[in-house]
Amino acid sequence: MTTNWLDDIKWTQDGLIPVIAQQAFSGKVLMFAWMNRESLQLSIDEGYAVYWSRSRQKLWRKGEESGHRQKIVDVLLDCDEDVLLLKVEQEGGIACHTGRESCFYRQLNDGKWQAVEPVLKDPATIYKQP
Amino acid sequence: MTTNWLDDIKWTQDGLIPVIAQQAFSGKVLMFAWMNRESLQLSIDEGYAVYWSRSRQKLWRKGEESGHRQKIVDVLLDCDEDVLLLKVEQEGGIACHTGRESCFYRQLNDGKWQAVEPVLKDPATIYKQP
Repeated sequence: MTTNWLDDIKWTQDGLIPVIAQQAFSGKVLMFAWMNRESLQLSIDEGYAVYWSRSRQKLWRKGEESGHRQKIVDVLLDCDEDVLLLKVEQEGGIACHTGRESCFYRQLNDGKWQAVEPVLKDPATIYKQP
Repeated sequence: MTTNWLDDIKWTQDGLIPVIAQQAFSGKVLMFAWMNRESLQLSIDEGYAVYWSRSRQKLWRKGEESGHRQKIVDVLLDCDEDVLLLKVEQEGGIACHTGRESCFYRQLNDGKWQAVEPVLKDPATIYKQP
């Protein structure tokens, strides 16, 4: 009998685990998303991040439309075994659907959220039009 | 009528938001926790991270026992307005209750989780004994 590394994870009641994606070379935190068992296994098998979209209730191959895929460098599990940290190479240097490098682009300044990161690419040109 | 930056946040049904804590100077991701409205307001007021402990269902002033407080440097909100990134100065250089710098100390290597970070301080000496 072999133990499976997937069984070591404490999944939520919905069978999910929160995932932090971090740019490997710079340490920049890019985004936060969720994986289920299948998407994590696929991420390892394919070498690129595959998330579980809670809003669409389906597998989400990050970058499948935009080309902004996340090549997996390292996968780390926390002390409570219920959060993953994914170190990635962010293709295109853009993780956010707004065209910014990181989804965490609003900073709290004097009681207001202020956008502090530039839009690197117009979202209209990132996503294929129907 | 003034708008409140706390109202811009999309809280979960339980009134919480996931929080990623990152060492400001190094970019190292330290831990993942949750805040409610009160704990986030207190974090800003006090200048140090105050989380909401879901297991204990109470406010958790990070470092209240260990002394390993997290001085807040920056608070960032993501594009969906439902995740926070906290840039902090980690006092004592230890965020994890296991005595390691980061809670993300297990790395997936050849299908196994392998501890890749040193224990900097024996947990028995970190926490006050009853």
